[in-house]
Amino acid sequence: MSTTNATIAPGSVGEVVPQRAAFAEPLALKAGRALSGYELVFETYGELNAARSNAVLVCHALSGNHHVAGFHRDNPGKAGWWDNMVGPGKAVDTNRFFVIGLNNLGGCHGSTGPASIDPATGKRYGASFPVVTVEDWVESQARLLDHLGVRRLAAAMGGSLGGMQALQWTLSHPDRIAHAVVIAAAPKLSTQNIAFNDVARQAIVSDPDFHGGDFYSHNTVPARGLKLARMLGHITYLSEDLLGSKFGREIKGEDYGFHYDVEFEIESYLRYQGDKFAQIFDANTYLLMTKALDYFDPARAADGDLARALGAAQAQFFLASFSSDWRFPPERSREVVEALVKAGKSVSYAEIDAPHGHDAFLLDNALYHRTVAAYFDRIAADVGAGARARPLIIGGAELEEMKGYAGTREAEP
Amino acid sequence: MSTTNATIAPGSVGEVVPQRAAFAEPLALKAGRALSGYELVFETYGELNAARSNAVLVCHALSGNHHVAGFHRDNPGKAGWWDNMVGPGKAVDTNRFFVIGLNNLGGCHGSTGPASIDPATGKRYGASFPVVTVEDWVESQARLLDHLGVRRLAAAMGGSLGGMQALQWTLSHPDRIAHAVVIAAAPKLSTQNIAFNDVARQAIVSDPDFHGGDFYSHNTVPARGLKLARMLGHITYLSEDLLGSKFGREIKGEDYGFHYDVEFEIESYLRYQGDKFAQIFDANTYLLMTKALDYFDPARAADGDLARALGAAQAQFFLASFSSDWRFPPERSREVVEALVKAGKSVSYAEIDAPHGHDAFLLDNALYHRTVAAYFDRIAADVGAGARARPLIIGGAELEEMKGYAGTREAEP
Repeated sequence: MSTTNATIAPGSVGEVVPQRAAFAEPLALKAGRALSGYELVFETYGELNAARSNAVLVCHALSGNHHVAGFHRDNPGKAGWWDNMVGPGKAVDTNRFFVIGLNNLGGCHGSTGPASIDPATGKRYGASFPVVTVEDWVESQARLLDHLGVRRLAAAMGGSLGGMQALQWTLSHPDRIAHAVVIAAAPKLSTQNIAFNDVARQAIVSDPDFHGGDFYSHNTVPARGLKLARMLGHITYLSEDLLGSKFGREIKGEDYGFHYDVEFEIESYLRYQGDKFAQIFDANTYLLMTKALDYFDPARAADGDLARALGAAQAQFFLASFSSDWRFPPERSREVVEALVKAGKSVSYAEIDAPHGHDAFLLDNALYHRTVAAYFDRIAADVGAGARARPLIIGGAELEEMKGYAGTREAEP
Repeated sequence: MSTTNATIAPGSVGEVVPQRAAFAEPLALKAGRALSGYELVFETYGELNAARSNAVLVCHALSGNHHVAGFHRDNPGKAGWWDNMVGPGKAVDTNRFFVIGLNNLGGCHGSTGPASIDPATGKRYGASFPVVTVEDWVESQARLLDHLGVRRLAAAMGGSLGGMQALQWTLSHPDRIAHAVVIAAAPKLSTQNIAFNDVARQAIVSDPDFHGGDFYSHNTVPARGLKLARMLGHITYLSEDLLGSKFGREIKGEDYGFHYDVEFEIESYLRYQGDKFAQIFDANTYLLMTKALDYFDPARAADGDLARALGAAQAQFFLASFSSDWRFPPERSREVVEALVKAGKSVSYAEIDAPHGHDAFLLDNALYHRTVAAYFDRIAADVGAGARARPLIIGGAELEEMKGYAGTREAEP
């Protein structure tokens, strides 16, 4: 956990410094309102090549942020959330690609969001911050690319809600994206997905400390509601089998305690995760992110015909799903794959056997990372990002045998 | 919805009046404490035969009660919760069986529970009401049978937590039960089951109106927490497919509203169910019932060996599960069936194809009800409860073709 260790870890981009960009032009939102201006916090890894053809945008999921890879000087032991995916020699090889991570508009890690000061009032937005959508995020991200001098993305990529953004990129700006890498996502939420989100939102808004979204001025946070939302979320991120093998029915004492305090290990784990999250995450951002999930439904504009909706895309697609993911199970990715095939698009798809549930997209898995690496080799060849200079690094180790890993594309249809 | 209609509905037991029984002898609980005395509210349907051999105990699940069948004079439109299962001519035929339904100890529908007055203090029990277990319930039910002059049950039956009680009966009082009918149950909760229960409990205990369980003296109820618990519960009671086909992604308006008020139909449904439940159910009872679920684990006393644990049983068993139940899926019932087979017990098992999820055990389903009816014919023959005098009634209609319904036992192993 020392700076030295983090610095020398094979495949780490090393120390990174977040950057900021301010956008003065009003952004028209799907909600029918406009944000008069906004700031985005972001990080970049690798170098933009002379042809400006090697940019990869990494979109984050519900609770993610701009810190995708490497570490910050003030917290050298904590790597970015997709550090196992992005770095020199890794699946998304920063020796070849210029990788951009950002905190989405409405977020709570530095970009303009509900906790930011509304210039019109001089007070925090709070409840007045608009509901933003996946489409809105893509527009705000397009402006960030303009700012960085990137006309066309080699790829947009993301898992879960991040994958939805990658997919939306191909529809909002078909001429500005060569490849979409859509992992553990869905073309729209199921009724059950929405139901879980609503329980989470109700937990937050019914917390007396929420104050209708304006808790900032009451010097409090709806910690009880956020904790419940996170506990519930965690259950849906993990597979039932993984929960069983990790926690089982283990209890803290020798025998049942016959009380309502924490007793089973799974209770201890969930409450700890919930408490930790409630201390760092903004409740309004949580509401906003879940609503963006609920609203995402590109087929809606095409009377529910996903293939027709995806017809506008010009990108090539890579999708991956995980066998034990019950939040966005493989069936949901297959819906997208089948619609893309029907629409005559180029699509590769990998269904990864993994026990972890939805969270698998964030975890070490050699087959998964090899498959993504193979697809990024294809992207590199397509956009002129150069060849891989060293063996693939997975989980901190070089895979020497990976010289022939193009042969592992068996998971592609 | 008139009294007349309810009275003449084919297969209805008609108007019923709840009864009460008081038990003065202290009841020693698994928690290591004793209740100095308690009352149980119950209903009976049909007549106890001369041999006292035809009694069937119906055990309720998390939010159930003693009102199993028929209707009360003050609410003639509302039938008991298992009215489609219990009545003259129905699967559990009250022309042949003496059926007993009760509100469990710790409940909130008339039996002694957290909202009752503690005779030692003259105040409501509240937080001081002991945690009770499935084993404790069986003991309290055994005393009710003594009170009713029933030495040995023809059957104990129940769904979900009710099925766990039926199973426990065969272990606690092997000589007092001939058949156990265990529907949509499990031999113990999975880690995920416990996790969902803990989120529900945390929602309740973190509601500022909970007051550590003594909300009665504050003239309030933790309605926010109870609502969240019920919303979450409902999601797990229904299959994802049923939610999808029933509510889809329907919204209240023409287009997205871009607000956090109720918008999707599923939100409206869940919040309505949650609000309704919060008005009628006791929060302490909810905690207690979920904890009884968490603790149930008969194999625990046999070092996890369920077959060995069930070795003490002398009853014959019928189990049923439903294909779309993801709370207690068929795999969980099969665990019990396999352990019973291993222990050399007589067991019949039906796996019913039904789209409704866990709630299927409460719903009309001809194959399900025919299968249960067939098993109760076997019970009737076993205990001398007489032959079925009329065709089976399912969903209010006589099934004439059911004369040969013994042939539908194909679901039994």
